[in-house]
Amino acid sequence: MIVVMKKDATKDQVEHMVQRITKLGLKPHVLVGVERTVVAAVGPEVDGLKESLEAGVGVAEVLPILAPYKVASREVKAEPTVICTGSLVVGGGTIGVIAGPCSVESEEQLLSTARACKAAGATALRGGAFKPRTSPYSFQGMKEEGLKLLAAARDATGLAVVTEVMATEDVELVARYADVLQIGARNMQNYRLLEAVGKSDKPVLLKRGPSATMEELLLAAEYVLDGGNPNVMLCERGIRTFESHTRFTLPLASVVYLHAKTHLPVVVDPSHGTGHTYLVPQMAAASVAAGADGLILEVHPHPESALSDGYQSLNFSQFSDTMALCRRVAEALNRKM
Amino acid sequence: MIVVMKKDATKDQVEHMVQRITKLGLKPHVLVGVERTVVAAVGPEVDGLKESLEAGVGVAEVLPILAPYKVASREVKAEPTVICTGSLVVGGGTIGVIAGPCSVESEEQLLSTARACKAAGATALRGGAFKPRTSPYSFQGMKEEGLKLLAAARDATGLAVVTEVMATEDVELVARYADVLQIGARNMQNYRLLEAVGKSDKPVLLKRGPSATMEELLLAAEYVLDGGNPNVMLCERGIRTFESHTRFTLPLASVVYLHAKTHLPVVVDPSHGTGHTYLVPQMAAASVAAGADGLILEVHPHPESALSDGYQSLNFSQFSDTMALCRRVAEALNRKM
Amino acid sequence: MIVVMKKDATKDQVEHMVQRITKLGLKPHVLVGVERTVVAAVGPEVDGLKESLEAGVGVAEVLPILAPYKVASREVKAEPTVICTGSLVVGGGTIGVIAGPCSVESEEQLLSTARACKAAGATALRGGAFKPRTSPYSFQGMKEEGLKLLAAARDATGLAVVTEVMATEDVELVARYADVLQIGARNMQNYRLLEAVGKSDKPVLLKRGPSATMEELLLAAEYVLDGGNPNVMLCERGIRTFESHTRFTLPLASVVYLHAKTHLPVVVDPSHGTGHTYLVPQMAAASVAAGADGLILEVHPHPESALSDGYQSLNFSQFSDTMALCRRVAEALNRKM
Amino acid sequence: MIVVMKKDATKDQVEHMVQRITKLGLKPHVLVGVERTVVAAVGPEVDGLKESLEAGVGVAEVLPILAPYKVASREVKAEPTVICTGSLVVGGGTIGVIAGPCSVESEEQLLSTARACKAAGATALRGGAFKPRTSPYSFQGMKEEGLKLLAAARDATGLAVVTEVMATEDVELVARYADVLQIGARNMQNYRLLEAVGKSDKPVLLKRGPSATMEELLLAAEYVLDGGNPNVMLCERGIRTFESHTRFTLPLASVVYLHAKTHLPVVVDPSHGTGHTYLVPQMAAASVAAGADGLILEVHPHPESALSDGYQSLNFSQFSDTMALCRRVAEALNRKM
Repeated sequence: MIVVMKKDATKDQVEHMVQRITKLGLKPHVLVGVERTVVAAVGPEVDGLKESLEAGVGVAEVLPILAPYKVASREVKAEPTVICTGSLVVGGGTIGVIAGPCSVESEEQLLSTARACKAAGATALRGGAFKPRTSPYSFQGMKEEGLKLLAAARDATGLAVVTEVMATEDVELVARYADVLQIGARNMQNYRLLEAVGKSDKPVLLKRGPSATMEELLLAAEYVLDGGNPNVMLCERGIRTFESHTRFTLPLASVVYLHAKTHLPVVVDPSHGTGHTYLVPQMAAASVAAGADGLILEVHPHPESALSDGYQSLNFSQFSDTMALCRRVAEALNRKM
Repeated sequence: MIVVMKKDATKDQVEHMVQRITKLGLKPHVLVGVERTVVAAVGPEVDGLKESLEAGVGVAEVLPILAPYKVASREVKAEPTVICTGSLVVGGGTIGVIAGPCSVESEEQLLSTARACKAAGATALRGGAFKPRTSPYSFQGMKEEGLKLLAAARDATGLAVVTEVMATEDVELVARYADVLQIGARNMQNYRLLEAVGKSDKPVLLKRGPSATMEELLLAAEYVLDGGNPNVMLCERGIRTFESHTRFTLPLASVVYLHAKTHLPVVVDPSHGTGHTYLVPQMAAASVAAGADGLILEVHPHPESALSDGYQSLNFSQFSDTMALCRRVAEALNRKM
Repeated sequence: MIVVMKKDATKDQVEHMVQRITKLGLKPHVLVGVERTVVAAVGPEVDGLKESLEAGVGVAEVLPILAPYKVASREVKAEPTVICTGSLVVGGGTIGVIAGPCSVESEEQLLSTARACKAAGATALRGGAFKPRTSPYSFQGMKEEGLKLLAAARDATGLAVVTEVMATEDVELVARYADVLQIGARNMQNYRLLEAVGKSDKPVLLKRGPSATMEELLLAAEYVLDGGNPNVMLCERGIRTFESHTRFTLPLASVVYLHAKTHLPVVVDPSHGTGHTYLVPQMAAASVAAGADGLILEVHPHPESALSDGYQSLNFSQFSDTMALCRRVAEALNRKM
Repeated sequence: MIVVMKKDATKDQVEHMVQRITKLGLKPHVLVGVERTVVAAVGPEVDGLKESLEAGVGVAEVLPILAPYKVASREVKAEPTVICTGSLVVGGGTIGVIAGPCSVESEEQLLSTARACKAAGATALRGGAFKPRTSPYSFQGMKEEGLKLLAAARDATGLAVVTEVMATEDVELVARYADVLQIGARNMQNYRLLEAVGKSDKPVLLKRGPSATMEELLLAAEYVLDGGNPNVMLCERGIRTFESHTRFTLPLASVVYLHAKTHLPVVVDPSHGTGHTYLVPQMAAASVAAGADGLILEVHPHPESALSDGYQSLNFSQFSDTMALCRRVAEALNRKM
């Protein structure tokens, strides 16, 4: 159920409603909007629940939540969620650009990339310190040392840091250095990990699994929201199909669909979504045109010698051109980038 | 092999090369560019072929064609092919907009739609007279009567007519009324039909089959080109994947890929590609941003009562808004629409 | 509607019902079962139809047909359809085995293959004379000359001939030589071709398109049935998925599904369904275990030098081993092979 | 590299080779075969490695491992791996049957199911105590209480227990009660979890992710093998495709492919692989015909009231019939079941 509070409802009345919901054995989620506050009551059906909640002081309306995902649903919160952390703003008409190397490889590589990305207009730095790799024999990332280099790059450039966390036992460590915790596509349904980042105070970038449906993605986000963390960015990064001229198939209609169903912002990853450098600039522009709230792009000083994903990374000048292209589209659509 | 003629090669020299290629048992395709003329020689490998062709008068260079599709390949013709027929221009920086109902249903329906589309900026009229339907019990189209209504709508509005031809035995009939012959997705590999439209002098709009690879699409186009018809527009209209929130998955990276591989223009169909009206405007804008040379859109005066595909059709005001949105993106990217 | 006639209904009563249905503007399809005769009445909903049909003499029951495919549905005919033509029996507990080369290449090649297949237990000969090829530059088949060789091979071995027809204009020609008309996967939704073979008296082998749903396949069969030809074998030959270790993904659950929904027999093609010789024998055995009524297998004297599809063809000894393997499974399940 | 030891190589010589490999900075994996022992040396390329290893005492041959998965490859171990734990034998001509409910729901439900499965010939009991659920609001399993019930059912019936472990922090707990640790499809690329079960002494059942390639599955197994646990069963449970008449598409060619590439046994899950009870029996039989080393089947006393996956569960009598059907196929192919 969604309890819509009156415009002039007091903090006390909202707090009272939260307690009332808790006593009924349900879980309250408070969503503060510009105009009104809403309290979602999530849990098993209880007889006479609607009537009981309607009787609360300061209540305007009580409505059922039809979507299987509750807190993520637009039914509960019509206004888009805007995520702000350090230099990064995603949503609400502002397009965040998260750029950087696939893997942190060295101080030199990371710092030069961070500086070039910042100069071209990126608003956050990406870089993998813990790398989930298909083969146990591939480079697994620089781990904590990589995190330290990311933090140093933030100090040097002011760019917020986005980096992946692969395991519950690492959440605390990664959160110490990162501004945004990335959940990779392979871990989209690693529910313990979702629960763990749901308890963090750092925003989460949740990547769609390559065969996940929209409902599965939104329910994965719901694990994080239900854990208490309201700041989730969904990330479309391509799906597995029969197509072989691209690494994945990047379905941009999901951006429009998600905007219809959820208030959470949607980021697109044209680097993984295509797997080829030459496809990235125009697919980034198309993502902006489709309404993306953010882009995440792989940039490397020398893509040809990258330790991972070089064939899909932009070099500095390609990144700068991509930014210029996207900015033209964004401006034409009255969005900030 | 590609025979690149010298800049100052005469018509006679080109004609001589065509005869030389024919005598060698190969098929010549002359592609006249702005700067140079090229003659493709398609057929089985012949010993000493390269040397023999190089010896021709007016020859600058002889190069192998690496792609399995020959005449369609960018190797043979670097400049983009621009297709012009009546009011419709597709390619070379101009975005053609083909709009109209899924099926021709009545004079009233077609004419009102044609006028509304023209007013909003469409440059061609679409409408099915021969309808390939999944069930033998569904409405199969108005056939020749529908073609006549299309021709009458062209007379009334000046819009070029794009309509589907389903069978070799209908090519002549349809070509009598239509400006562009559409080959539907289900017939993309109906090779006899491709050969038949290859002999027509009307441009062809070739839709990608829902599980066709890029190479299969280009080789289907090659059947038409090899038949002697140089005017083929490729059309991306979505692929079959596991996604169920859209009718098909619309992979816009194919636009960028095709532009890299072929000189033929690429049209996108966001109506079939998404299957839901609310997804069409932004996916049309994203198609433009990805570089599409044209859009094909379903428009109906009353989508809710259309005989086919109503759930994915735009009404007049939605079409007009979609045009405005796309035009902003096109202008930002210095393209005409 | 399905009009179930009484057990003792006379031929005249059935004929009368056929006329009654025709007069109502509907299309009658008579399905003669062992116990009862049923007349399907297909067409638009008519007011009072059920009552009108129930009033017919000799009528036991009138029921609606819920499936979108009418004549193909099990609702209309519970007993499995058995297709018998010359040496080939498919369905009703007998597994037909259609074997032979992808393409007819020469008399020698075809005759030796036919003899080897017959010796190993095949009950029909396959071989392409008209070949739909992805590239216009690939070998397109021996055409009528190939058909003559097929007929000669039938004369020599007694094996019924199964061969593809690609175009309406060839149906008569191919039917003159063939015992079964094959509709290839690329033409599964070439509705004019389906209508054309619907008027033939030769049984049809209808291959599933690589992205066709079960309903699309059954509705394609319905085109043939609705045309008047009751003898359709459905053929599962694999679908397009992300898997790349096989040419297609062969989903055998479709055999069980189709048996639940339709009375038409189901043939499996493990050669195209896997694309690799080494996968064929066990997938053929699995097809039999899943309930297939027939197998269609590519066999070639020298797969390594075949003009098409050599990598998925069995040589004579591999075919013989495959037959032995399948026969063991068939016998264990009390089916004849 | 694979170091093949001579037939008469002594334990000391093998041990010496292990030390030699370790000193070279590589990881040794000893695979003891019936005829010979082999030591795989996994790690980065080292100059002169082949020569250095060939110089070892008792060495017959040194060969490169071409597959990206090393210890899992048939190149390293030609004989099939047979996994035996309690009542369960999987591989080497014996088909293990793991049956039971999706979720452990109560002592009564589990015990009655275990007894019925055992009576019908199952050789292990499955049942989820930790349940990965798409929605955070669905039943998440009985957790440790469920594990205790599973152990009690083993005590009562003698059936080995197979149950899922979802998180590294639970491996020890689950291993205390279970005989086989199941890694669910959603966690197939949860590498930390794979590393954790790689350190366990319990066999692992590794389910294929719904969009995982064969190489990704084998490399996931490699994480477990590389961790030191040689007992991995691969499990095919269906992939995501466009098909909607089944929950997943079950591609049995993967069984044959995997047998060609790896020595690890392959189990098939026709319950998840089809998602519909009526499809399970014949797809189980087809799995056996394709060469499966084991089956994992959902069985429930009252599928219609199951807390999860009821629509794909067999009741006791359906399970018994499925076993009879599969046994006939297995016997026809000289395999034990």
